[in-house]
Amino acid sequence: MNSFVVALDVGGTSMKGGLVTRSGEIIRTDRRATPRDRGPAVVVATIRSFIDDLATAGGGAPAGVGLAVPGLVTADAALYSANIGWRDVPATDFVPLDVPVMLGHDVRTGGLAESVLGAGREFSDFLFLPIGTGIAGAVILHGEPYGGTAGWGGEIGHIPVFPEGEPCACGQIGCLETYASASAVARRYSTRATSSASPVTAEQVAALTASGDPLAMEIWDEAVEALSLALASYALLLDPSAIVLGGGLAEAGSLLSVPLAERLQKRLAFRDAPPLRQAALGVSAGMLGAALLGWRAAGFADAGVTWSPDVLKTPRVA
Amino acid sequence: MNSFVVALDVGGTSMKGGLVTRSGEIIRTDRRATPRDRGPAVVVATIRSFIDDLATAGGGAPAGVGLAVPGLVTADAALYSANIGWRDVPATDFVPLDVPVMLGHDVRTGGLAESVLGAGREFSDFLFLPIGTGIAGAVILHGEPYGGTAGWGGEIGHIPVFPEGEPCACGQIGCLETYASASAVARRYSTRATSSASPVTAEQVAALTASGDPLAMEIWDEAVEALSLALASYALLLDPSAIVLGGGLAEAGSLLSVPLAERLQKRLAFRDAPPLRQAALGVSAGMLGAALLGWRAAGFADAGVTWSPDVLKTPRVA
Repeated sequence: MNSFVVALDVGGTSMKGGLVTRSGEIIRTDRRATPRDRGPAVVVATIRSFIDDLATAGGGAPAGVGLAVPGLVTADAALYSANIGWRDVPATDFVPLDVPVMLGHDVRTGGLAESVLGAGREFSDFLFLPIGTGIAGAVILHGEPYGGTAGWGGEIGHIPVFPEGEPCACGQIGCLETYASASAVARRYSTRATSSASPVTAEQVAALTASGDPLAMEIWDEAVEALSLALASYALLLDPSAIVLGGGLAEAGSLLSVPLAERLQKRLAFRDAPPLRQAALGVSAGMLGAALLGWRAAGFADAGVTWSPDVLKTPRVA
Repeated sequence: MNSFVVALDVGGTSMKGGLVTRSGEIIRTDRRATPRDRGPAVVVATIRSFIDDLATAGGGAPAGVGLAVPGLVTADAALYSANIGWRDVPATDFVPLDVPVMLGHDVRTGGLAESVLGAGREFSDFLFLPIGTGIAGAVILHGEPYGGTAGWGGEIGHIPVFPEGEPCACGQIGCLETYASASAVARRYSTRATSSASPVTAEQVAALTASGDPLAMEIWDEAVEALSLALASYALLLDPSAIVLGGGLAEAGSLLSVPLAERLQKRLAFRDAPPLRQAALGVSAGMLGAALLGWRAAGFADAGVTWSPDVLKTPRVA
């Protein structure tokens, strides 16, 4: 048995791959485009060859394979993804080799990595909330991601924070994601900007907010308010030890976390707000979580527990 | 060892006690006032003598004692209750006999009973939502109540459903409980009724709603809307198999459940709403859950699993 696993984080745009040793050393990373527009069968075939190439680069069959995929997923099958278009793909279909394999939900697998290796290392119960193009969370309970009865849990991005608010692309009204995702912040600024400026990014809205641009400040404030409402609901329901913020919007650091912590506490009259923490693993969270799944598939349920945080520092997925 | 446990559900107004056999037969029930206005020490002493009297009536020392208490609680101690006023009372202080004892949070212990014996019997993951004077829920995950990191979980009554809405007694704004508890429904009707009618109960508002009274219908509708928002958030976060409605307001039956199910589905565009079920154990849920805790304390972790639903039918706590 070789002393590495192949780990793959399958996103709608690109796939992040890595080889990770039993002691947590990342000996190789690579990235490949997800050929989503060519249909699910081509995506599966691309995953197979990506895994094969990574294994060959590592010097042979890995001890296991772990994959983080979007949509509805069990450890043994990718059941459904609106994004990629597949249905009921057995885990073994992704792997060209006869080695143990384990699948996980993309956000929850990232949350697993933050739980075992990252910002949630000291907490057993927390929310991992990556704020990117969309917003979905990983509900971590007793150190493990919890996906609900059928695997549809963690959809905090579609909590109705403003019940009479703006329509969301999902068909609901006033969803958190419509106000506070990185793309919503960018979109809402562009839509309301009076000058015919070119489309902005969330990063640019953050910079404009920091520099005192009134419209940017207003939109940023609405995003913070929406997040505070959703996180208040989360805290009241699940009493977490912490909330770990990740994704693009969290890159704004204290510009987001300071007003959010204040607003969240204001929404919680009879209890302390859980502390906000910055995610530690960045865009590598999904790949690292997939590595944990790969080692679990290989029979090492305790994978990651003894890994030094130092080994996680380099190299990150490019 | 005797073949019964003493079970006690300690409420702010009254305590419901029972003797329950190993096979789930309720051989005795009794009720006593909670002398809350005389301070926590008197409440503890009253619990002790109530347990003693119940044990004597049963013919000697019970196999164990289970207590459902409000506030912050572990299996071994009642840590805090604003309602009763106690702090850090060890479980053994409640029991005048040298027998095993286990404490549980009142709502979560009721939820445990609904999970093992009642309407949640066929579900491993659900929300037990008793709607009474206040609103708090029991989050049931993998068949067991989940209280969060410090035991403050399940406070769905204080989710901000209308962020710019009415102030809640808790100090927050727009809490579910302010619109949808039985006392809120009664209070909101009385406040807005133009005639100087005598104060009404939630039951009366329900009857007025059924008979087409416009104000009652409006207030009932706002309660349903508030509940649908909170339950949508719950469903999106935790993907439960069902929502089990209990407490006074749920007595309204289909007057509540039919519009609520419809409104909840309307708030959930991309997934089916979890089914709503009526709680099965009524006001006995807490006492029956305490009986399960008593048997667990006595070493029978599987207590209740084999109990016939028939034995639960009579006698109910008076």
